[in-house]
Amino acid sequence: MRIIVVGAEGDVGRAVCKELGSRHEIIRAGRSRGDVTVDIADPHSVAAMYARTGPVDAVISTAGEVHFAPLRDFDRETFMIGLRNKVMGQINLVLGGFYTVAEGGSFTLTSGVLDRDPIPMGSGAAAANGALGGFVMGAAIEMPRHQRINVVSPGLLDVSVPRYGAWFPGHEPVPAQRVGRAYAKSVEGALSGQVIIVA
Amino acid sequence: MRIIVVGAEGDVGRAVCKELGSRHEIIRAGRSRGDVTVDIADPHSVAAMYARTGPVDAVISTAGEVHFAPLRDFDRETFMIGLRNKVMGQINLVLGGFYTVAEGGSFTLTSGVLDRDPIPMGSGAAAANGALGGFVMGAAIEMPRHQRINVVSPGLLDVSVPRYGAWFPGHEPVPAQRVGRAYAKSVEGALSGQVIIVA
Repeated sequence: MRIIVVGAEGDVGRAVCKELGSRHEIIRAGRSRGDVTVDIADPHSVAAMYARTGPVDAVISTAGEVHFAPLRDFDRETFMIGLRNKVMGQINLVLGGFYTVAEGGSFTLTSGVLDRDPIPMGSGAAAANGALGGFVMGAAIEMPRHQRINVVSPGLLDVSVPRYGAWFPGHEPVPAQRVGRAYAKSVEGALSGQVIIVA
Repeated sequence: MRIIVVGAEGDVGRAVCKELGSRHEIIRAGRSRGDVTVDIADPHSVAAMYARTGPVDAVISTAGEVHFAPLRDFDRETFMIGLRNKVMGQINLVLGGFYTVAEGGSFTLTSGVLDRDPIPMGSGAAAANGALGGFVMGAAIEMPRHQRINVVSPGLLDVSVPRYGAWFPGHEPVPAQRVGRAYAKSVEGALSGQVIIVA
């Protein structure tokens, strides 16, 4: 298969490329580097990316910004960052990609653990993750051209512990390799409308 | 208790007022009518509402717009309507209300059935509902002043069938009275961080 991985340079993106790269052609996409660059929050940038890549069999997104802050410090603008970027950005990849992705192809988005196992300062991320779970449930029954859509919800990756572990007290890190396999299940399997939890 | 009900004139809002109105003081809020008016998408309007009502024991929101369209017809602007209004609007009521709601008081938001039992044209609503479920999970552990927060996720109300039933093929309508009781459970009970499903 020919697969776009948006956010290929992140910890999750690297796990995905490692799992799928040996048996598929990966097109690495990122905001500032990769085979193609894209700002997922901008539908025009998403359209330009698809025009450059041409037809693909699957799109994987491991991208999306979200703001972290104590609940009392959030205001409309900081809270909207996650809704605009992590949620709408990933949905832009779907809404813009129906005719670039092959008949029977798939979209796999990324949410995260914080809507099922919250941490302080994580309410923006929790809302974003929940939105993505709801979206794939709603979208799956309307996907054109027999396309499928899922979202992977990984726990804190083992490789991310040095940077983020202190924010996740008591969380059991998940091996990056297992996270990579969840994307393989979504892309190479037959599921649709699922939140694929890696706990 | 003194309770603000935002969206008091809608089908869910009426069920809430009927259930809680006999034993509590209800302040009805709406976009264009009620004891106070408020545009929940605008934090300044939310602040003005709280300034007018003064201290309350609970805030219930049954408000929030969302766009319905076939998945392929959504674009960024139409999809964002639900994220800006139904999601961020209800969250604005929380972020702006921490110091108007009493110590130990509660916020009760409203999502809906479409992130667990989707219908065609409902992917915007499904995303919005999921976001609200994620938000209350994340926010509950950080609420100030021992406040609680839940979201009620009602199925299609029996009283709404004449207007909306055709969009919900095969859905089992839920009695408005049972929906009203779910809000009583959130306001008068002790739950927090829950999605209270009325199916």
